[in-house]
This record gives sequence, C-alpha cells and structure tokens, in this order.
Amino acid sequence: MSDKTALTPSTHTTPPAAFSHGVRKGNILQVAGQVGFLPAVEGQPPTPAGPTLREQTRQTLENVRAILEEGGAGWDDVMMLRVYLTDTGHFAEMNELYNAYFAEQGLRQPPAARTTVYVGLPAGLLIEIDALAVLD
Amino acid sequence: MSDKTALTPSTHTTPPAAFSHGVRKGNILQVAGQVGFLPAVEGQPPTPAGPTLREQTRQTLENVRAILEEGGAGWDDVMMLRVYLTDTGHFAEMNELYNAYFAEQGLRQPPAARTTVYVGLPAGLLIEIDALAVLD
Amino acid sequence: MSDKTALTPSTHTTPPAAFSHGVRKGNILQVAGQVGFLPAVEGQPPTPAGPTLREQTRQTLENVRAILEEGGAGWDDVMMLRVYLTDTGHFAEMNELYNAYFAEQGLRQPPAARTTVYVGLPAGLLIEIDALAVLD
Repeated sequence: MSDKTALTPSTHTTPPAAFSHGVRKGNILQVAGQVGFLPAVEGQPPTPAGPTLREQTRQTLENVRAILEEGGAGWDDVMMLRVYLTDTGHFAEMNELYNAYFAEQGLRQPPAARTTVYVGLPAGLLIEIDALAVLD
Repeated sequence: MSDKTALTPSTHTTPPAAFSHGVRKGNILQVAGQVGFLPAVEGQPPTPAGPTLREQTRQTLENVRAILEEGGAGWDDVMMLRVYLTDTGHFAEMNELYNAYFAEQGLRQPPAARTTVYVGLPAGLLIEIDALAVLD
Repeated sequence: MSDKTALTPSTHTTPPAAFSHGVRKGNILQVAGQVGFLPAVEGQPPTPAGPTLREQTRQTLENVRAILEEGGAGWDDVMMLRVYLTDTGHFAEMNELYNAYFAEQGLRQPPAARTTVYVGLPAGLLIEIDALAVLD
C-alpha cells in the first residue's frame, strides 16, 4: 500500500500542534476536526467566519471539503461525518444549514452517516466536524 | 471498488437531515449514531423505548445491529463502538447491560474496541452509539 | 481477509466490559479509548500515572502505542487520534506535551489527523485518546 500523505490545503492555517489537517493512505482518507476558520492570512491568527452557527457551519463544511479535495476525494466519498455542537438548542438549525449545504453539492451517492453530540469547544466556536472517507 | 450504499432498515425512522443511518463501500461499513428509538411507526414521531438506561441501551444496540445486518454484516465484523453517555454515574450499569447483551449475541470473534465519553444529548436520551465495521 | 484479532498488551488491565483494548482485521487497526493508567499490577485496581495532565498525557500515549505495537503497527500507521479533554483550559498544555512526545518518536511519515473535544470523563481522569491506524 502507498505511504501516508498529509493533506494541507493552501487555505488552511498551520495546525496548532503536530497533527495533519488530513491524511490519506491507500483508499482511506481521514479529515481532522475542522472549525469555522476563514482562509488563513499570513501573520494573522485564525479567525472564525463569524459568531453565528450559520456562518460557522458553512465555513466548517467548506474547510472539510478543501481537505477532501486536496486528497483527491469529494463529498461522495465520505462515509462518516462527526458533528460536534455546543448546545442541543442548535440541532434543528444545524440540520437546516446542513441540508441546504448538501443540496448545493450535487451528491451522486447516498449521504454519509453522521453522529452529532454536544461537547465543549474553545470559546467562540459553535461547531466542529471531522470526516472519514473511502475512495474508489 | 464498489459504490457507496445507504443502509436503511425498515424499522428505522427517516433521518432528521441529509445523512444515512449507515453506509457501506467495499468492505467498510459505518453506522451513524443510534439512539434508543423504537421501530418507526408511520405518521408518529420517533419514540424512545423508555426513560431508563436499561431500556435505551438495549434498543440502541438493536438499532445498530439492524443497520449492520442491512449491510450484510454482524457484530463480529465491528471494529469500534463509540458509546456516548450523559452521566458518568451510568458507566457501571451500562457495562452490565452491554455485557449481558453481547453474551446473548454468540460472538465468534473478539469483541470490538470501544470508547465511552460523557456528552450532552437531546432531552430524554441517555445513550447514543455508533459503529465502524470491516467485513471479510 | 483475515480474522479480527484482539490486541491485549501484557501491560494493560482487563477491560471493565466486553470490549477489546484494540482489534486488527486485515490492514485496519482500531485502538479503544485509552487513559493514563499505569501498567497493570495483579490484584490491584487500575491506577492513573498521576493527577496531572502531564503525567496522564504521556501515559495515555504510551498505552495507545503498546496496543499499536501489539498489532504490528506504530505511530507512522496512525491516521486519526481522537483526544478527549475535560477542560478547554488544558488545550495549550496538552499540545505542548503532545508535540514533545511525538518529537521523541522519530516519525518518518506525516503525523496523524486529530480531533480534540471537551467531554466528561470518570473522576480523576483528565485525558482519553483513541486511534485508527491503517497498516501497509
């Protein structure tokens, strides 16, 4: 089998520790937990797309997508999305945003499985998502 | 490799968003987070098997099993179970229920690995479980 | 594909329920959630390496490593590490400890992806980590 490759989109900030934003080995691709940070700007700290769930959900999904694409995959290859929210009161709104996002993506395969749980996240962050993909 | 297939047992309620209860692609099968909902009844909202950990744990495991079987797999194929509880005080009882359940399943292979953490879940739900399986 | 094999390092305490510390099937290896318990001593209950994040983080990573090695894998094969902390205030220190640990491991491949979330853990435990590896 092939080596493990780090997936580092140019839009992404440097990880804050010795981990990769994503890795691919053979046909398995794992995306690290993504949050709603805007594309990285040289010399500036990571900045969320905005304070709202709406802004952060869309940006988080876009950040997952960038890593999938860096590894030659797309949403159709994703088997599992883990969604971490901070507030059970956000579930309905997140689902609306999630459905709207994926309606735009033109999936040709069934959507991924998903688990949503409610955890603590760093201050100001309302959502985090990671993904496991299996390529053809 | 084969296409990604959605796994939707007839007992399951429609997912509340654009995700699959389970997906299989090649020999990898991922089960979405399951909770203790009873088999779906047309026109009725999802209903937990009961208010207790005992009722919900057994139903949740049965819901995971239904998805595994829909994909041609069984407990022996499961590599990892993620158990989400809401209260650290439930750990001992969940383990008793877990052991009793699997003692009935007649596993011929070693049990899956497991991680148990304590998170928030929607009101009334005490346990959620998801699973990763690798088929022969 | 081969059977599923349980991975049980001699250093590990018996799991408190019907799960495996790790399993391998084919080229997929899953490590169960590890905490900072010291190597098992016959007849004694599991004991954390110490009360601090520093002590527990190192021991937890060593416990993950023992399971990887039992399955013929190493850190270079790890695709994903899930880090569960109990306090967002521990993130910076955990990253320092994490970086120092992996700097010593002499990785020849890119580091694994990672998700860090903040959950409840049993009293006295500050960190839990599980791992998914894909072997060559």
